[in-house]
Amino acid sequence: MKTHPLDKALDLVHSDIQAGHFTGATSPDYWNMVGPFGGMTAAVMLQAVLRHPDLLGEPVAATVNFAAALGEGAFEVLAVPVRTNRSTQHWTIQMSQAGADGKLHVTTTGTAVTAVRRETWGTNDFPMPEVPPPSAVEPMQIGPKGVEWIRHYEMRPIIGSIPSRWDGSGDASETRMWLRDAEPRPLDFAALMALSDTFYPRVWLRRATPVPIGTVSLTTYFHTDAALLGDVGTGYLLGRATGQQFRNGYFDQAAQLWSEAGALLATSSQIVYFKE
Amino acid sequence: MKTHPLDKALDLVHSDIQAGHFTGATSPDYWNMVGPFGGMTAAVMLQAVLRHPDLLGEPVAATVNFAAALGEGAFEVLAVPVRTNRSTQHWTIQMSQAGADGKLHVTTTGTAVTAVRRETWGTNDFPMPEVPPPSAVEPMQIGPKGVEWIRHYEMRPIIGSIPSRWDGSGDASETRMWLRDAEPRPLDFAALMALSDTFYPRVWLRRATPVPIGTVSLTTYFHTDAALLGDVGTGYLLGRATGQQFRNGYFDQAAQLWSEAGALLATSSQIVYFKE
Repeated sequence: MKTHPLDKALDLVHSDIQAGHFTGATSPDYWNMVGPFGGMTAAVMLQAVLRHPDLLGEPVAATVNFAAALGEGAFEVLAVPVRTNRSTQHWTIQMSQAGADGKLHVTTTGTAVTAVRRETWGTNDFPMPEVPPPSAVEPMQIGPKGVEWIRHYEMRPIIGSIPSRWDGSGDASETRMWLRDAEPRPLDFAALMALSDTFYPRVWLRRATPVPIGTVSLTTYFHTDAALLGDVGTGYLLGRATGQQFRNGYFDQAAQLWSEAGALLATSSQIVYFKE
Repeated sequence: MKTHPLDKALDLVHSDIQAGHFTGATSPDYWNMVGPFGGMTAAVMLQAVLRHPDLLGEPVAATVNFAAALGEGAFEVLAVPVRTNRSTQHWTIQMSQAGADGKLHVTTTGTAVTAVRRETWGTNDFPMPEVPPPSAVEPMQIGPKGVEWIRHYEMRPIIGSIPSRWDGSGDASETRMWLRDAEPRPLDFAALMALSDTFYPRVWLRRATPVPIGTVSLTTYFHTDAALLGDVGTGYLLGRATGQQFRNGYFDQAAQLWSEAGALLATSSQIVYFKE
């Protein structure tokens, strides 16, 4: 059976240096312009937690900071459960890669919280916007110059599609799109982490100008458990992202991801560097 | 001259163990029900970064994870610049406190990003809601049973005030309020970090039911520099907070803080445990 490209990208080998120490390698399938798709790096960071032999519960929150460019090839990830309580566990995560000097350098830092969750009262206070169903929305066409990682997602933008003319005419920063893995794969936490970073830079939309950018920090909260993920399966998610403030080289993005049935599965924030 | 209670709470002594290692103590002024006000703990974590001798630039992002209860008394904070680039710096932060066994235990983890920012294009895509000016809004009255930290903030709720009847009648989770330090103090980054956590739990508002809660992780993005903070001075901020999803023991909160002049100074997210 063919391995899904996402499973290849998430493939970590547990080393014998210490519990939670893994080796892996960047995936050509999820390559962006000058490095891996950040969402995949974030997913790999979370995967190290999920693969840890002492894991308690399921992810509630994960923050990933992109400290330095990750180059093509091998990397190491260390996930450490720094505090384990009765029903929650707090993690620090660090990714490192050998530099030109042959030494290991930290490229990515992060923290995560996992928890054993109990059934409680609940409600959604951010209902899914009314949008046409996925079948009524055209998939985004990816030209020959498109970056590789985008080919591995099916994206059906409803509003706020990537500008077709870079003419400085932008006036809003909201995108709504249906999305899922291009090659069907049942949704799991690592995939959801990656999906929370699939929105193209808000500054490109807001300005209709393609300035250089780089995500600096990404935080995703999980409002789902394995059972609800199972209900979603290979279905579409509705993703919504908006910019809130753009100022002196940085902007933030607030995002939500609902199942097609309207369950708010994840909420996410990120802050992104932009050049001009 | 009398020291402001916030400056007392932020008072850290740089130890000689290593650069970025500080000792401090919890402040009775910012005591919550069973521990310090989490916003103050977050502010102390950021303060360790701000006091580090190798600090580059000003805060862009900070995430603080509340891993365990912090008890009354002494604690240690270690801020480490794990990666310093040309204009950005990535930090890990850890707070520890001696337990009943006499050993140090990690109570709080965090990461931060600081940066030297340059002037660029910018815009606000989340304008301040239209609200009456602070002078037209009654300050919240704090009864004799009010917790201590609330006395050190002036809060003028416009909508979504803390329920006066706990009768299960709630139907929304949005609060808008004017707020500032009760005793005037010019705004700085540590104060802004604390202010981003001053909203009472969304689940209390949404349900008009005071269930036990605890913030698990808080992320704040800073859209300001020292100059803009200087313009704000001791003025009011408009704070807005909403819940997005409440499910199986956790809910998230999205928040924005504007200056009275309408500058979006900070955006913030948190995920909070609730009991029932």
